[in-house]
Amino acid sequence: MTWVPGAAGSGYDIDHLPYGVIVPSDGRPRCAVRIADVAFDLDGAEAAGLVLAADSLRAPNLDVFLGLGPAHWSAVRERITELLTDPAHRAAVEPLLIPLASVTNVLAWSVADYVDFYSSEHHASNVGQIFRPGQPPLLPNWKHVPIGYHGRAGTVVVSGTPVVRPSGQLGGGVFGPCRRLDIEAEVGFVVGAGSTMGEPVPWQRFGDHVFGVVLVNDWSARDIQAWEYQPLGPFLAKSFATSVSAWITPLAALGPDAWTDAPVQEPAVQPYLADDRRALDLAITVEWNDTVVAAPPFRTMYWTPAQQLAHLTVNGASLRTGDLFASGTVSGPERGQVGSFLELTWGGREPVMVKGEERTFLVDGDTVVLRARVGDIELGAVAGTVFPARS
Amino acid sequence: MTWVPGAAGSGYDIDHLPYGVIVPSDGRPRCAVRIADVAFDLDGAEAAGLVLAADSLRAPNLDVFLGLGPAHWSAVRERITELLTDPAHRAAVEPLLIPLASVTNVLAWSVADYVDFYSSEHHASNVGQIFRPGQPPLLPNWKHVPIGYHGRAGTVVVSGTPVVRPSGQLGGGVFGPCRRLDIEAEVGFVVGAGSTMGEPVPWQRFGDHVFGVVLVNDWSARDIQAWEYQPLGPFLAKSFATSVSAWITPLAALGPDAWTDAPVQEPAVQPYLADDRRALDLAITVEWNDTVVAAPPFRTMYWTPAQQLAHLTVNGASLRTGDLFASGTVSGPERGQVGSFLELTWGGREPVMVKGEERTFLVDGDTVVLRARVGDIELGAVAGTVFPARS
Repeated sequence: MTWVPGAAGSGYDIDHLPYGVIVPSDGRPRCAVRIADVAFDLDGAEAAGLVLAADSLRAPNLDVFLGLGPAHWSAVRERITELLTDPAHRAAVEPLLIPLASVTNVLAWSVADYVDFYSSEHHASNVGQIFRPGQPPLLPNWKHVPIGYHGRAGTVVVSGTPVVRPSGQLGGGVFGPCRRLDIEAEVGFVVGAGSTMGEPVPWQRFGDHVFGVVLVNDWSARDIQAWEYQPLGPFLAKSFATSVSAWITPLAALGPDAWTDAPVQEPAVQPYLADDRRALDLAITVEWNDTVVAAPPFRTMYWTPAQQLAHLTVNGASLRTGDLFASGTVSGPERGQVGSFLELTWGGREPVMVKGEERTFLVDGDTVVLRARVGDIELGAVAGTVFPARS
Repeated sequence: MTWVPGAAGSGYDIDHLPYGVIVPSDGRPRCAVRIADVAFDLDGAEAAGLVLAADSLRAPNLDVFLGLGPAHWSAVRERITELLTDPAHRAAVEPLLIPLASVTNVLAWSVADYVDFYSSEHHASNVGQIFRPGQPPLLPNWKHVPIGYHGRAGTVVVSGTPVVRPSGQLGGGVFGPCRRLDIEAEVGFVVGAGSTMGEPVPWQRFGDHVFGVVLVNDWSARDIQAWEYQPLGPFLAKSFATSVSAWITPLAALGPDAWTDAPVQEPAVQPYLADDRRALDLAITVEWNDTVVAAPPFRTMYWTPAQQLAHLTVNGASLRTGDLFASGTVSGPERGQVGSFLELTWGGREPVMVKGEERTFLVDGDTVVLRARVGDIELGAVAGTVFPARS
């Protein structure tokens, strides 16, 4: 039990300790972990010799720390736990606790490559029914291949960053601001330790490479997407902004209780994908202007993050520190469990009520917040507000 | 005229001066420019005060220099030209000239985001005819949208890096080494100066952001691609390796004579894409085991690099120092002008003779070299040899 007040029941108790980068009033970014409503300044802690992490925490972001690998991650987590638990350390640590209300967060790490999967069967078949009515909802490859594609790493932004409505070709000769601006509620995995080019990483090595988990809002311009995506996939429809949590929840915080059974796969998958069917049991909520409009259950994903990792590298592609791979839109079997407004409003044909207004896609000024919880662990939220298109 | 012997007619005369990173026998990477068959050690030159570039050249790669922007690029180029031209500098500079035969090259910069376009009308319609016989060869969006997608930046490698044959799902329940390993001969553009998120970069600003040009071989696993690419585009078929030139030819080396008229576009494009139709007049050759099998003319590309830049950012996506965007496979109208073996052998159905052997796709041990020339400027070649799949 921690001596930090307010931790119990906050979602950020001593068993969580997510990592982020805070900017206090002096303007200098610092690595930190969150506990309760405060950030523990790890730059200061390493400077004072309270934590030893090969100076990796004395940096403006987590890049060097992420690259140290699992043995260092464990040692540092153990030490931080000790510092925040043993009252003997309180006098030394307390001056390094900074109220979150007095800081801003910046992106906690440099995103190397960003890969986005498409791993919810419910989402893929909803999209199939909306866009290809009368045809089989899933394409023939879907249950064999964890479908994914590369997104734009340079426009991954931290929660709270304004999202400017993109302009582009909307089809039918029309150019202008996107009219069907949507969200995609996803879960992202941050790679810490890289791998060697030419050498596949088996799913069993998930914990050796993946450092932690973030929430992801993969903002999507559905009209741009519909016009551009054949034959090479989504491009400008997705590349204008992708928001991630300010805080990375380390895998180490997600004990056995955080995992449950993943859906059985039928037909059987290729041997390199035959994993132990462990699903992270995150309960996600989607808030549209403070109204909860959907509650996607992450455990329903057909392809697990371990399978995604194995697939991503089976061709010999290497991992780098900072790679981010996201699950794809998380949608459960029910309408109230979907992770996109495309599905929630069934292609815009069935509006929903948000604070007394009938709504389909996002309008300027809208704010969307994604949250997720498993047990007493609350992932860092992802918030974004839509700003008008530039003229 | 330079005082360096052997420059005239070498493709690397004083008007060229491409940038790269060499590793001499001491193992320390150094920024350099190439002239004739030597590298001018710019790390040494900046250390000696011969070149002033805000210490950006005293670094293990060109990242910082690229980020300085066009005014610095010009000043440094002018100074290097002076040093290599005026005999008064010969005594100071000559000790910094290192024979290329005694160095290796590493990737000259850190690739931020890698975007691959699909801008050859001949290539797109060849692929359409091969894969969708009896249907219109171009999809309806192709003459409106410069189709592109994001590739994997972390597996962009320097010319000469071995290419391990990827394994993956080949369709029809088969997993194994790729059987249809192919090349794509492309031209890549390296972004130096970044841009602000939310603010499109018009095509007229091409020269303010793009530093230079490389050749690209976008190695492609056609069987993996055919099975995985619906609906989100190519993923593992492309992500195992993309080779680029060791030397970046600065735009400044490509004077008005290097450009010619690009194809007329009909129907008219959206205003943000209405450029001045300038095409870089590179004559590319594709060598398969020392046999020239094709000569793709870059001037035939439907979409120009300036249009690609404008499209890439029209939705507000930002540019970062180190971004690479490639043209897509360069194919001219004739069979002998295509930039892929898929097209050269018409889907593998019409083998070609390479050194007395009938060939379709790449076999282990094959070497492919791409070269390109415009006037007396020879781009850095891109070579790669295929190694067997890992078992």
